[in-house]
Amino acid sequence: MTETGAPQDSPGSGLTLIHPRYLVAVRPQGVVLEEYSVAIEQGMIVSIMSRSESAQAYPQAESIELAEHVLLPGFINAHTHTPMTLLRGYADDMDLDVWLREHIWPAEQEFVGPAFVADGARLAIAEMFRAGTTCFNDMYFFPDVLGEVCREVGIRARIGVPLIETQNAWASDIDSYFEQGLKLHEDWRSEPLLNITFSPHAPYSVSDETLRRVAAYSQELDVPVHLHLLETKWDIKHSLQHHDVHPLVRLKNLDLLNSRLLAVHMTQLSAGDIDQLAQSGVHVIHCPQSNLKLASGICPLDSLLEAGVNVALGTDGAASNNDLDLLSEAQTAALLAKGISGNAQAVDAFQALEMMTINGAKALGLESLTGSIEVGKAADLCAIDLSCPETQPLYHVVSQVIYAASRRQVSDVWVSGRRVLDSGQLTTIDLKEVTGKASQWQSRLSGFGNRKNPA
Amino acid sequence: MTETGAPQDSPGSGLTLIHPRYLVAVRPQGVVLEEYSVAIEQGMIVSIMSRSESAQAYPQAESIELAEHVLLPGFINAHTHTPMTLLRGYADDMDLDVWLREHIWPAEQEFVGPAFVADGARLAIAEMFRAGTTCFNDMYFFPDVLGEVCREVGIRARIGVPLIETQNAWASDIDSYFEQGLKLHEDWRSEPLLNITFSPHAPYSVSDETLRRVAAYSQELDVPVHLHLLETKWDIKHSLQHHDVHPLVRLKNLDLLNSRLLAVHMTQLSAGDIDQLAQSGVHVIHCPQSNLKLASGICPLDSLLEAGVNVALGTDGAASNNDLDLLSEAQTAALLAKGISGNAQAVDAFQALEMMTINGAKALGLESLTGSIEVGKAADLCAIDLSCPETQPLYHVVSQVIYAASRRQVSDVWVSGRRVLDSGQLTTIDLKEVTGKASQWQSRLSGFGNRKNPA
Repeated sequence: MTETGAPQDSPGSGLTLIHPRYLVAVRPQGVVLEEYSVAIEQGMIVSIMSRSESAQAYPQAESIELAEHVLLPGFINAHTHTPMTLLRGYADDMDLDVWLREHIWPAEQEFVGPAFVADGARLAIAEMFRAGTTCFNDMYFFPDVLGEVCREVGIRARIGVPLIETQNAWASDIDSYFEQGLKLHEDWRSEPLLNITFSPHAPYSVSDETLRRVAAYSQELDVPVHLHLLETKWDIKHSLQHHDVHPLVRLKNLDLLNSRLLAVHMTQLSAGDIDQLAQSGVHVIHCPQSNLKLASGICPLDSLLEAGVNVALGTDGAASNNDLDLLSEAQTAALLAKGISGNAQAVDAFQALEMMTINGAKALGLESLTGSIEVGKAADLCAIDLSCPETQPLYHVVSQVIYAASRRQVSDVWVSGRRVLDSGQLTTIDLKEVTGKASQWQSRLSGFGNRKNPA
Repeated sequence: MTETGAPQDSPGSGLTLIHPRYLVAVRPQGVVLEEYSVAIEQGMIVSIMSRSESAQAYPQAESIELAEHVLLPGFINAHTHTPMTLLRGYADDMDLDVWLREHIWPAEQEFVGPAFVADGARLAIAEMFRAGTTCFNDMYFFPDVLGEVCREVGIRARIGVPLIETQNAWASDIDSYFEQGLKLHEDWRSEPLLNITFSPHAPYSVSDETLRRVAAYSQELDVPVHLHLLETKWDIKHSLQHHDVHPLVRLKNLDLLNSRLLAVHMTQLSAGDIDQLAQSGVHVIHCPQSNLKLASGICPLDSLLEAGVNVALGTDGAASNNDLDLLSEAQTAALLAKGISGNAQAVDAFQALEMMTINGAKALGLESLTGSIEVGKAADLCAIDLSCPETQPLYHVVSQVIYAASRRQVSDVWVSGRRVLDSGQLTTIDLKEVTGKASQWQSRLSGFGNRKNPA
């Protein structure tokens, strides 16, 4: 029980009881409960007990029946660029370098501003809610605008303060990036759902001086650092050419290799690198679909988990994925790890589920608040309907979730107790308005530059 | 125009016009048409013309509006074992050998019979229709029972006559397998949707003598041979030990390496092997998710396509995938090919679409009938609604289908002109009955042997 959940004279008034058929709380590990109920009050999980006990304990509670469903912790998307959803499918089937330099960056240069960020983020969050995601870790320009959208629709987020040596519509120089970022950190102190990260774009695009400031602020304020790292071989080559050392050595020298670092991609790792990551407590954010699609390389997930590195899952932006679907990402992560390692036992279904829930919470420094269904944590929850033919028959609930279920089966989502998806319907986002805006951006972006839109 | 589609006094009576927003007919290659209509009559495609022309040409036709949709050829699942859908998730996260010998085969030995096959197939076809599949290529016992189910629900199928040296509930010895198979071939001569293949299980489980008979019948009757081949390294080792030659040499010596061979899996291929496949016209059936999940190996898709080998896609059975979702399979195939080859341009979205449509038709010897939307072919069609947030904005239709859309968006499916999925509702399958049967099998199978059902 938390302080907000103490029984009163009329137990259960103001309290909601969710009755799923199956409960996979992620903690304790590997357990599937049947006919258990979760009580939530003022946004928090206040009790987990058998269904029959819960009816006696809280006779006045509002009841929500999920007779054919599994209730899970809400999913955590540990790396994305939500506004880039407006660039979904804008440029496909090309290498990272061509994709970025010839297509994505020119379009961003022309169009990115507060409206682009707000409209793209709303579209992204609509998609994420419909896929069970309750928390995400973002890196983009105009984090202030993104924060406003998150507050409005009710999603939990770590929002990156972007740091890059080039000027941008959001900030004229690196001092301005820091200044605005520190202001956001202050402004959001009392926000229940929002926190910042420092998000230097990548070692190749950020100076030593900037990274030193990041390291200092990160330590002083206990704020995570969110960084693209070792996405392709080229990153190592560039570092050796310009800094005379491997990127990991450079980051170590700059005091960034520690448990506040969220290292995204990590497709270029030696056995020694993996040991170093394990020892320093760095979190790895694995984005398998984006890495495959851009032919960046393959993150050695199995070896990382074996070494004890905390690995969470990210979709990356919709411009390189092209969806924000963590269930599909978890399936890809598990299958790819087996295929690449040659070991069908590598990354089992429960480990895949952990990567999209508790491991994400750990990486984002939110483990005390979310990532599992435990008394005292926020009610960040996701229900999946298992009754459709695609998930029948049902022998193992967690296997079915990872290997057979799709996001079409996500029926209900709660963030901090607020039901943002109710029987498949978004309650805080006007879908028609959001897709209408997307259509307007499509018209503007389609006409940009010398684009030929192939099939 | 086919002979059935000649204009009459009152043009369009008895004729249906489908008006999708986008039409991707697959042939001609790479073309996306907007505001075109497809006219179907007596199960055939009789005309493709602009929407305005079609209204003038067929004023009496029944019209079906698909205002936000893309119309595609129905998908072709070129390798599956439909009845095994009842074993979906029965045993996961283990190597092929353990999975087969300790879990799947004992369960099959106990339970496989006409009822298992019929109930599993109906469940599988329900899932396939809901995912846009109009044709599949099966390998299992009781092909006669499977054929009955296909006729009842209206799906196109190549149904394998299983050939294996061990006796089974369906056949007592190899002569009986052949005898029953040849009878099916005769019985189905006038069936519009059904044909057989000869389906020897794998080189390691079938004798030279049986394979010689298969080669002879295949040539005499012009019937494809459907065979698991080079699924793992062990297949080569076994062949060298028992036959002194590599499996491809053995098959060549037995006159099986030709354009009637559907070689499924093919994860163990040298450059020389790939040349030989290209020269001999063998079709490769790629099952990427099953190969990854069982850690069997990775089929070199990019090299095969470059060499000019026809590669189609299969889901394999739901016991090793664990779904029958070709859209997801095509996405995995495209992403994996890029990741493994290190070339982001490998296997673009259109090639992935071809693999799940026209290439499947070619492999199954059904190219004149299905696999593309062309006048004179059967009306095997699939419509995908692109209006939801997951596929907005929309720059490239085919990219969006392969990289962003999911089967939840498949709205309508026609097989030979019969609308088997109508605005998301199955018209020939009673979903409640099908999932009810699955639930009964679940109870029986869960209690079998010394099973511990982990989470």
